[in-house]
Amino acid sequence: MMTFEQSLDIIRENIEKIDYPQYPGHLYAPIRYILELGGKRVRPALTLLACNLYRDDVSDAIQPALAWEVFHNFTLMHDDVMDKADIRRGKPTVHKVWNENTAILSGDSMLILAYRIMSKAPSEIVKSLLELFSKTAAEICEGQQLDMEFETRLDVTEEEYLEMIRLKTAVMIGACLKTGAMIGGAKMNDMGLLYEFGINLGLVFQIKDDFLDIYGDPVTFGKTIGGDILCNKKTFFLVNALQLAEGEEKISLLNRLETKSYNDNEKIREVTAIYNRLQLRERAEKKMKSLYDKAISELSKVDLPEDKKTVLYEFAKQLLERDY
Amino acid sequence: MMTFEQSLDIIRENIEKIDYPQYPGHLYAPIRYILELGGKRVRPALTLLACNLYRDDVSDAIQPALAWEVFHNFTLMHDDVMDKADIRRGKPTVHKVWNENTAILSGDSMLILAYRIMSKAPSEIVKSLLELFSKTAAEICEGQQLDMEFETRLDVTEEEYLEMIRLKTAVMIGACLKTGAMIGGAKMNDMGLLYEFGINLGLVFQIKDDFLDIYGDPVTFGKTIGGDILCNKKTFFLVNALQLAEGEEKISLLNRLETKSYNDNEKIREVTAIYNRLQLRERAEKKMKSLYDKAISELSKVDLPEDKKTVLYEFAKQLLERDY
Repeated sequence: MMTFEQSLDIIRENIEKIDYPQYPGHLYAPIRYILELGGKRVRPALTLLACNLYRDDVSDAIQPALAWEVFHNFTLMHDDVMDKADIRRGKPTVHKVWNENTAILSGDSMLILAYRIMSKAPSEIVKSLLELFSKTAAEICEGQQLDMEFETRLDVTEEEYLEMIRLKTAVMIGACLKTGAMIGGAKMNDMGLLYEFGINLGLVFQIKDDFLDIYGDPVTFGKTIGGDILCNKKTFFLVNALQLAEGEEKISLLNRLETKSYNDNEKIREVTAIYNRLQLRERAEKKMKSLYDKAISELSKVDLPEDKKTVLYEFAKQLLERDY
Repeated sequence: MMTFEQSLDIIRENIEKIDYPQYPGHLYAPIRYILELGGKRVRPALTLLACNLYRDDVSDAIQPALAWEVFHNFTLMHDDVMDKADIRRGKPTVHKVWNENTAILSGDSMLILAYRIMSKAPSEIVKSLLELFSKTAAEICEGQQLDMEFETRLDVTEEEYLEMIRLKTAVMIGACLKTGAMIGGAKMNDMGLLYEFGINLGLVFQIKDDFLDIYGDPVTFGKTIGGDILCNKKTFFLVNALQLAEGEEKISLLNRLETKSYNDNEKIREVTAIYNRLQLRERAEKKMKSLYDKAISELSKVDLPEDKKTVLYEFAKQLLERDY
């Protein structure tokens, strides 16, 4: 069996070999730029690992895995324009280095590139694979749309929030695993189980991200704490706080969301205090644990010897326990 | 044989049947909106006609034809954002009715939708068809990139201009025809000839568009005359004028491009006078005629009885002679 690290090595090696046209330079340079910013490459690694559950030679899965990574970075390029984000992985975003038009158009080319790479899959499965790819890609756009719509709403429910992150984040994790399983030749039932394993893990991943923005250690997390609070992002915490706070507390929370003149540290401290009083930390931990348990239960039903799945069990555990 | 009008009828009927999700509404409503603005539907009609050269029943070509129309409208949605265009077909553009983020994200969903519709092609050709689709889509982005780069350049050559419109406009016409031929079961050589026929016609189409902006009759053309002149668009005419004008005339032209305070009608009149003195009208007519002749020559080599091709010969003739 391949380790997670070995899978990442294959991805890193092959990502450098992606072939782009040289001309026009301003169209393709931003694609190279965003792919070279790094990132954890977790998604394509999962594709290889899922394939490796069913066969030793994962070479057929490499191009589809890369296609997912290219697609993921396409969404980042366009999301950064829509969110007016200046920094991505510590470097200026594409629309800052070039301009918005370039980020839009290079993003479009990148989506097309993802399709071209995905089409290199073995021809007997290319049609089902592209179906999965298109369905997932459409859902991710739906998730981004919901995320943007939530910005102006104060009545988002936890259920709506979970549906948004399912679409925006979790379906890609599920689809990456399913892609690998499909190439490996898994039975339909196993593909479905691995997909659901990925969905539930993806939800854990996003809630953990929201969690670490508040309770993370700035040194290990690597991001400034409280960023989501400062921009009133509709996280698991804010959505629940708006639903659960009552009376004075609700007024106090709304006040902090609406008043632009608040001192940053003060706002973070006070909003966190409200979250604490509403016991949202415990609520998030409970939710993550229950999603994690569901993920593990799906994985356990995959029709393979347990020792084959060790790397995925470990990956899930690390995702739940991560503090970075 | 099917007439052009019959082919358009099939397209119009089926475009209304395209199935979009209802939720989230703000993501899919703009797709419906731009598709319902109308447009000539020439591209998908050509796909059906090319298929009809080889078989009577064109039903397998309908979905791929629609995919091209959806793709074409996706490019318009994003181009309008990039060009900051407020009006399209007499109606406000998507980013005006909604906003830029919606136009970006709905556009992305529309590109994905185009792939999904194209994938409904008969499975034995879906791989080659998607290859053609992706290659063409990438080229169209390259054309748009060149077009934007030309905005800030004064030294664009006629050759560069022709390469830009080949990518931005002509390859889609070629690919639409090739798609139909592929579905119809044409031989490789015929597919290539129909593709080249489309490329040359696409070039004629774009130069004619540039031509009508200057020499068209505002009543029949349906657009304001001189729009390209007012925004200094790098058309066949401006590119050549910048290359051919000398001395006083060159200075006078540059002056009119740079001075923002010019009266609109005066600018149109004077720039047109420069084009006339440089005999660019004749140059454009000669170029269109030679491209048209090339197109006709390719079509004549297609290995089919001449009477089968009548509808395409007539289409080409109308394109050259159109004054609308």
